[in-house]
Amino acid sequence: MPTGRTAERPAVDVAASEAHASAATLHLDRIRWNVDAALGQFMDAQAGQAADECLPPLIEVIRGFVSGGKRLRPLFCVCGWVAAGGDVAAPAVFRVGAALELFHAFALIHDDVMDASAYRRGAPTVHRLLAQRVEERHGVATAERFGESAAILVGDICLVWSDELLHDSGVSPERLSGSRLFLNAMRTEIMAGQYLDVETGESGPSDELDRAWRVIRHKTAAYTVTRPLQIGAALAGAEESLLQACDAYGSPLGEAFQLRDDLLGVFGNPSVTGKSDLEDLRDGKRTVLVTLARQQATPGQGAALDELYGNPELGEEGADRLREIIRQTGAEDVVENMIRVRRDRALGALERAPVTEPARRSLAELAETATRRQR
Amino acid sequence: MPTGRTAERPAVDVAASEAHASAATLHLDRIRWNVDAALGQFMDAQAGQAADECLPPLIEVIRGFVSGGKRLRPLFCVCGWVAAGGDVAAPAVFRVGAALELFHAFALIHDDVMDASAYRRGAPTVHRLLAQRVEERHGVATAERFGESAAILVGDICLVWSDELLHDSGVSPERLSGSRLFLNAMRTEIMAGQYLDVETGESGPSDELDRAWRVIRHKTAAYTVTRPLQIGAALAGAEESLLQACDAYGSPLGEAFQLRDDLLGVFGNPSVTGKSDLEDLRDGKRTVLVTLARQQATPGQGAALDELYGNPELGEEGADRLREIIRQTGAEDVVENMIRVRRDRALGALERAPVTEPARRSLAELAETATRRQR
Repeated sequence: MPTGRTAERPAVDVAASEAHASAATLHLDRIRWNVDAALGQFMDAQAGQAADECLPPLIEVIRGFVSGGKRLRPLFCVCGWVAAGGDVAAPAVFRVGAALELFHAFALIHDDVMDASAYRRGAPTVHRLLAQRVEERHGVATAERFGESAAILVGDICLVWSDELLHDSGVSPERLSGSRLFLNAMRTEIMAGQYLDVETGESGPSDELDRAWRVIRHKTAAYTVTRPLQIGAALAGAEESLLQACDAYGSPLGEAFQLRDDLLGVFGNPSVTGKSDLEDLRDGKRTVLVTLARQQATPGQGAALDELYGNPELGEEGADRLREIIRQTGAEDVVENMIRVRRDRALGALERAPVTEPARRSLAELAETATRRQR
Repeated sequence: MPTGRTAERPAVDVAASEAHASAATLHLDRIRWNVDAALGQFMDAQAGQAADECLPPLIEVIRGFVSGGKRLRPLFCVCGWVAAGGDVAAPAVFRVGAALELFHAFALIHDDVMDASAYRRGAPTVHRLLAQRVEERHGVATAERFGESAAILVGDICLVWSDELLHDSGVSPERLSGSRLFLNAMRTEIMAGQYLDVETGESGPSDELDRAWRVIRHKTAAYTVTRPLQIGAALAGAEESLLQACDAYGSPLGEAFQLRDDLLGVFGNPSVTGKSDLEDLRDGKRTVLVTLARQQATPGQGAALDELYGNPELGEEGADRLREIIRQTGAEDVVENMIRVRRDRALGALERAPVTEPARRSLAELAETATRRQR
């Protein structure tokens, strides 16, 4: 049991020669690489000081899980930091980015338990993976129960370690303190968004669209874009005007980003999106797209939507019929237009934002890649 | 969405006239009262600034849940603070205590989901309570699934709010930083202890006792006594010798405390313990008591133990037979002796510890009440 009072702080290896080049142009791939290095070093440190021998195997599960993902939240966080004049070669900001990624792992692992999802990023979800390991010894039912319990705990570990990594990032306590308002908001908002998502049939049809928008705002716009940007910016000592600009850019962009994701979930090419084109249709999430389709549907289309959407047995034929109906209601075009309007609004806000030029260029690039038809 | 950078800090109402009296003697009931007041004020503030209308009903669920409990962790935290010379009238320490209680709520809510427990503190567990609310509308199976998902989220909210309350407690960033090592250790240890608890049948019989001790050490000794004491002491700027004394007192006492709890779970009087005398027997947790009984049992007793202990259908007659066997193996006496030895070791360490006198008296009182035969 540790009783000393200092903690090891592994240095992130940032090639000094690259630092000056990055001040002019942000290389998003290098940011990802540095965030991954910070994550790996933190996991090594945890494995090296594990309080119990049961932890190292769980650490390997977390490592495997976080190896996937686009690192969007760390990217926005680093952009916010650079936007406010932060040094892109400062190791601390990559550790903060890694902390956000670990928080995201927590959120996804718990979401997958709640949604009983079997796959994520082309691999078994954490609760399935853990269940599979004991299935032969204990039978399916016991293994499933164990997998869920263990995944809840693995998620909890990711959450507390995210906090640990944030506080050991090397950012000064004053700056950390200045970013807490945005961190606090982010964490509560994602919980609210997820709660709205799991609460079934609590709203009447007229409230459904409102609810779908609230989920997008909490779970994607605030959580994925605005808050990470604001956290990064606040850590670099941003003024109020920049913090507000993060919201002016982040809110419409985050909405556009989720609307694109919803469209890809229904119409995307599996070889490009990396997930089955049936998954989202079988899950039956009440997205803005589908809620709009329902509202515009003829009685016959509405009945077919109700029967097919969210049907866990849905096959390719039913999926094609479902896509056809969603198209026919005009919902696809409406959502494409919503994306365009929001992306343009975000880019307009970005033009006026008091940010450094490298950050402006990277944020424009992220707005483009996050909302285009094929990603 | 908040974009400002200051947070409201509700003052805890501590009667100034009581402050000097408390410096001489700690009134444990007053500490509890102040911790509860800090919790209530934090919940009021959260309800007042809720990011979504779905949150206030969840806040009421949390309020109801935290209204029970003995506040052991806050008590040890305040004792650690006073032991290191902290002012018992400082509102900050009660907020830190409240943060530990909120963390405890998180741990219990998730534990109850994992264990599928229906009752806690004489009331339905959070996942049952939330399921019951939608049962009529959605049927039992959907309601149960919803209750579990919502309880995972309510637990997550308690965890992030615990952190929020800790950071808004009013303790200086430097002192908070000095206590983080113990906070980090506490949070990871409870996860490890709970993981060992849910991992079924992974160890051979010879490892069972070792595993039961590891669960006690992580889940009770460190989590309930040593770490809260160290967190409080570190927040008041304790020296290394005092931080070590917290462990010398806390580890044996925490073990004694859990061993007493295990005995009460089997032999306790329900009208005194406040829980059914069948609950622990039906749950079948592999406690030190039962593991010892298994090791000492004759083949006939062993078979009966295997059949009865952890049997969800166990009735009063079977329970009496189970108690009789555990007694006959001598395990009850062995555990009573273990408790005595550990309590005495804790009291011995306390005598030698470099703590203030009011803290010494209160810690002696807590050691006594937490380990005596009837509580």
